[in-house]
Amino acid sequence: MATDIIGPDTRVAWGPRVDLRELPDLYAPQSVEPFAPPPAGIDNLGIRSIDTFMVPGMGEFTVEFRGVVRVARGRPTADDWTNALVYTNLIGMYMHGESSAVGPINVTLNPQCLSTGQLKTPFQSMSSEQPEKSCRMAVGALFHLPALGKTLFNKEPILLTIDHVRAIPPAGNPGVGRIYELLPLFDRDDPEGPAVAYITALDFVMGTYLSETEASELLGQAPS
Amino acid sequence: MATDIIGPDTRVAWGPRVDLRELPDLYAPQSVEPFAPPPAGIDNLGIRSIDTFMVPGMGEFTVEFRGVVRVARGRPTADDWTNALVYTNLIGMYMHGESSAVGPINVTLNPQCLSTGQLKTPFQSMSSEQPEKSCRMAVGALFHLPALGKTLFNKEPILLTIDHVRAIPPAGNPGVGRIYELLPLFDRDDPEGPAVAYITALDFVMGTYLSETEASELLGQAPS
Repeated sequence: MATDIIGPDTRVAWGPRVDLRELPDLYAPQSVEPFAPPPAGIDNLGIRSIDTFMVPGMGEFTVEFRGVVRVARGRPTADDWTNALVYTNLIGMYMHGESSAVGPINVTLNPQCLSTGQLKTPFQSMSSEQPEKSCRMAVGALFHLPALGKTLFNKEPILLTIDHVRAIPPAGNPGVGRIYELLPLFDRDDPEGPAVAYITALDFVMGTYLSETEASELLGQAPS
Repeated sequence: MATDIIGPDTRVAWGPRVDLRELPDLYAPQSVEPFAPPPAGIDNLGIRSIDTFMVPGMGEFTVEFRGVVRVARGRPTADDWTNALVYTNLIGMYMHGESSAVGPINVTLNPQCLSTGQLKTPFQSMSSEQPEKSCRMAVGALFHLPALGKTLFNKEPILLTIDHVRAIPPAGNPGVGRIYELLPLFDRDDPEGPAVAYITALDFVMGTYLSETEASELLGQAPS
């Protein structure tokens, strides 16, 4: 996809890069086998996220987003579910929400960051017979605020986690942004300046596979 | 100090840079006024940290570190304690610990990262008469393992937080590394490779001001 974040111009990677060559794009319908490490691929999934923002001088407000993510999964490091570790890269994202405080908000990936993650069995569950895995992803995002003519971005990664993962991808699982009190956001027009807003809470739900048409239509709405 | 991380060759900054020009170096003895925003300066403080590491194939082990940090504090954004926000940069660090698992471990700053933080009143405490502030710092570190000939580093910041801050600096306060389950560490000899170890827990205590001699002696032991 033209909007994918795969270029060599990323300035910072928060973890290992997944080799995208020869990875198949996966759309609905897919059958996902539980407790089995899947072949590598790019999952095109729906997503919902409820983010709470604090803007000093304006106050706190909560926005519900809906959209699409493209998650590249590398080859599992082992053939068995328990020992398999799967590195992931978030290579595409578009979410849209409406806020009474600041108008529409469109969320895309920050092309300066490689957003990276992994799926693995928690250390304390390695001796379980059929453990649930944990998923984590460190994300660099752009929050486009067209009504204000502003775009905000995070410098520390937004850490998204999903526990109790019984299948890869963890479609339908709820997840949490691990934000301790606040995560600063900066103004793309003043990137070295002070924080202008904060994320104070984030909950999300990974959706199921989208059709190629659904994914393309959503990604086509993403601002550049 | 020659070991300070202030160069323009940092590849990534996790927050605003503090202007170090004309900042005085602060050593013991200092008198710190509680609930008052202090003039800008560089705090030379002791630190203790208890870090738990997991190395796949080797297991989990806990190491106690002691050392020094140099924290540059910018000018408070307001004259009153409640409204003052203070940006910080961790510009120097050396900690030493001994592990029965991997031998000595020396911790320094990663010169490719600008480790940044802030001290501010939590949003929910802004209407308190004399609130306690919160401190957070996103840190990029190098973990030198001379017995193994290895140096490990983090790509996601290690987020150190101190709550209940009644004075700046929060000397003597306990703090926590906000690690959700694990934070991946990478091998400096294979920086694009897979994670080779993880931090699974981190607790620390900010020490008090060191004398210039104490600080210099500790920083002089830091590996390059």
